[in-house]
Amino acid sequence: MSDVVRIGMLGCGTVGQGVVRILVESSATIGRATGITFEIGPVLVRDAAKPRAGVPAANLTTDPEVVLGDPDVDIIIEVMGGVEPTREWLLRALRGGTSVVTANKQLLARHAPELLAAAEEGGAEIRFEGAVCAAIPVIKVLRESLLAAEVQSVMGIVNGTTNYILTEMDRSGLAYGEALAQAQALGYAEADPTEDVGGADAAAKMAILASIAFHTNVSIDDVPYVGIDSLQAEDVDLARQLGFVTKLLGVARIHNDAVSVRVHPALVPADHSLASVSGPDNAVLLESDTVRQIMLVGPGAGGKETASAVVADVLSITGSEPGSFLTGALADAGRPIAPVGGLESAFYLRLQVADEPGVLARVASVLGDCGVSILTVLQRGEGEAARLVMILHRGPESRVTDAIARLRDLTDVRDEPVLIHVVGDGGAS
Amino acid sequence: MSDVVRIGMLGCGTVGQGVVRILVESSATIGRATGITFEIGPVLVRDAAKPRAGVPAANLTTDPEVVLGDPDVDIIIEVMGGVEPTREWLLRALRGGTSVVTANKQLLARHAPELLAAAEEGGAEIRFEGAVCAAIPVIKVLRESLLAAEVQSVMGIVNGTTNYILTEMDRSGLAYGEALAQAQALGYAEADPTEDVGGADAAAKMAILASIAFHTNVSIDDVPYVGIDSLQAEDVDLARQLGFVTKLLGVARIHNDAVSVRVHPALVPADHSLASVSGPDNAVLLESDTVRQIMLVGPGAGGKETASAVVADVLSITGSEPGSFLTGALADAGRPIAPVGGLESAFYLRLQVADEPGVLARVASVLGDCGVSILTVLQRGEGEAARLVMILHRGPESRVTDAIARLRDLTDVRDEPVLIHVVGDGGAS
Repeated sequence: MSDVVRIGMLGCGTVGQGVVRILVESSATIGRATGITFEIGPVLVRDAAKPRAGVPAANLTTDPEVVLGDPDVDIIIEVMGGVEPTREWLLRALRGGTSVVTANKQLLARHAPELLAAAEEGGAEIRFEGAVCAAIPVIKVLRESLLAAEVQSVMGIVNGTTNYILTEMDRSGLAYGEALAQAQALGYAEADPTEDVGGADAAAKMAILASIAFHTNVSIDDVPYVGIDSLQAEDVDLARQLGFVTKLLGVARIHNDAVSVRVHPALVPADHSLASVSGPDNAVLLESDTVRQIMLVGPGAGGKETASAVVADVLSITGSEPGSFLTGALADAGRPIAPVGGLESAFYLRLQVADEPGVLARVASVLGDCGVSILTVLQRGEGEAARLVMILHRGPESRVTDAIARLRDLTDVRDEPVLIHVVGDGGAS
Repeated sequence: MSDVVRIGMLGCGTVGQGVVRILVESSATIGRATGITFEIGPVLVRDAAKPRAGVPAANLTTDPEVVLGDPDVDIIIEVMGGVEPTREWLLRALRGGTSVVTANKQLLARHAPELLAAAEEGGAEIRFEGAVCAAIPVIKVLRESLLAAEVQSVMGIVNGTTNYILTEMDRSGLAYGEALAQAQALGYAEADPTEDVGGADAAAKMAILASIAFHTNVSIDDVPYVGIDSLQAEDVDLARQLGFVTKLLGVARIHNDAVSVRVHPALVPADHSLASVSGPDNAVLLESDTVRQIMLVGPGAGGKETASAVVADVLSITGSEPGSFLTGALADAGRPIAPVGGLESAFYLRLQVADEPGVLARVASVLGDCGVSILTVLQRGEGEAARLVMILHRGPESRVTDAIARLRDLTDVRDEPVLIHVVGDGGAS
């Protein structure tokens, strides 16, 4: 592919505008890593008079022909949604040799074989990472990293709305209706949540994942699904008492060389990898004899997250020139290495001190003098000596180093202080 | 790349033989998905008289020239390890246009820029997924999916030996030496564990990850590291009491446009995503404004897991022909959809029953007659009615469906039975 790649777009809503923003804002990074410059060509919109940041006004069109008929477009990004006429337009583009990136799960879950055949016919590529779990690169991992791994099962929390609702039901004891209302208030659920809570959204995603994982064609019509809309708080509560967390799971398996794909509520043992995936997050657990279990976790929805997946697909298509991918970036670019003293961290500090009045005050005053603040203190006498354990609030590491040097000089402090980094601001869970 | 791809190998130990095994055993899958047939060409070994399954005896050689000088070799797989002469041989291959796949983290952590420059010079590719976290595709995700995501931090548990030891110290209260001995007995630690427990292994991996994540050159010499060999059981125990889990963390961050990469023990809040990564597993948490947090979890070591990563790299190099990748597989192949009744699952069952003597016996006898066995029962009276909650052992779903139909007919059973899938064999955590 040439050094300037021209993008055509079908649709330019939240995800589309996110795509344009990333291509513009990260153009230096992309250029350094791949040698490619992206040019936003024709963009199909409903209202061409409404400006879109990053898109020249002259490129906005309400005529699909302007996008589909542009012979200079290298890649079409489809973010308009819907099954028809999207399907027909993408088939035409692919057969004509124009690669396509789409985030359209309903289209993929119904017409993947036809679209892939059209891509093969035209010598084009079709990629659709954004259709499943937004920025979590589960399709790339299945399609490329695990292509030869003979994946046996794919189990996933692939709908963020329902996972948010179930997390609230589980942790706060809310009824389904209350948790749904809360999800809607926070923007995690649509005004009409049927697709999500009824399981159809998850079923479409599982059809796509199963197709890729097992190299076969699973349509959404092959996926029986049950949602969470009839789940009762009583059962979520009982499940928790029994040691389980309630999740809406997509489960796809090879079973006697046949494929089974389903979506239903399921109780997951509390120490299972998927049990700790909470709130609107998604996760997919992939199993094969070769790689055992690989799990991917992350935000399963969101405009910029989906846009990131779309851009990644675009770069996967353009970046496949041998030698170009990242080679330039690593060999040329350089960022300086930060001096350690300038970094910040919270710390755990353990001191063996004389068990005498005033020791804590003297230690605390050294820390205070060095500008180190204490979040938690545990003190326990042990005969002649006492153990003083502290969590130090996040702050410049150089201050902690200074404080330790001064603590060593205190006659109250016996033995070498034990200092361990703490992730976060020092707060525990 | 042509339809037959000839592989040359430098080294053929556990990982190398695993690679050959996957290429042979999954050749049908690979062929269907990519149209490519792999041919094992010359293989450099120490002892050419010792046979290697899947490699023609005539292809085994002790002369590196036979591999490096073969003009028909398309891709060289380097699994011999060591820094020299490996570095020189790979530079020669890359400059000559032969792509390279390696799992050699010590080489990469020291000489990545030189190798990448050689690849660019020769128009070849170099890939090295197996060098970090075995089959967890963190390098592909950083290099491709998150290329334009402007990653700000990479935090990881990238050494399985130390994570196993720390998990045992945390959960069983073992001292460091005891946990290490146990890890050695189970094969999770080497006889000489210095590289792992001292942090050097994690530092090499973090240098590679930081280089890819931040598109800059971080050498192992830029990574200060502290291992777990001086950690005391007392601190792990106190940390747990304070709500933290002790981990050996690699932490790489952009900090004022400079890069900081370090490896050290750290206390992780117990509800942090990395806290639940236990035993020999690895995990990498990637953060960026665009994608928020993405975490990848899986086995961080192992011969077949590393071999899987090497094969994935080979397929990433060969599979980049437009249209070829997976297109054929999905469009052509088909596996049947399994009938639901033939599947197995454990279940949660809740019944409202009359609070009378003998009800449990009658319910249990219906389940028993249908071949459904009960793992757990919770019974609680509620005035006239009682609630009966059971976890049913894993078994054919058709039996449970039959049993439910018969339970509905019992006069003791009020309301519709509630039935929810349970993941696993029915055991809770």
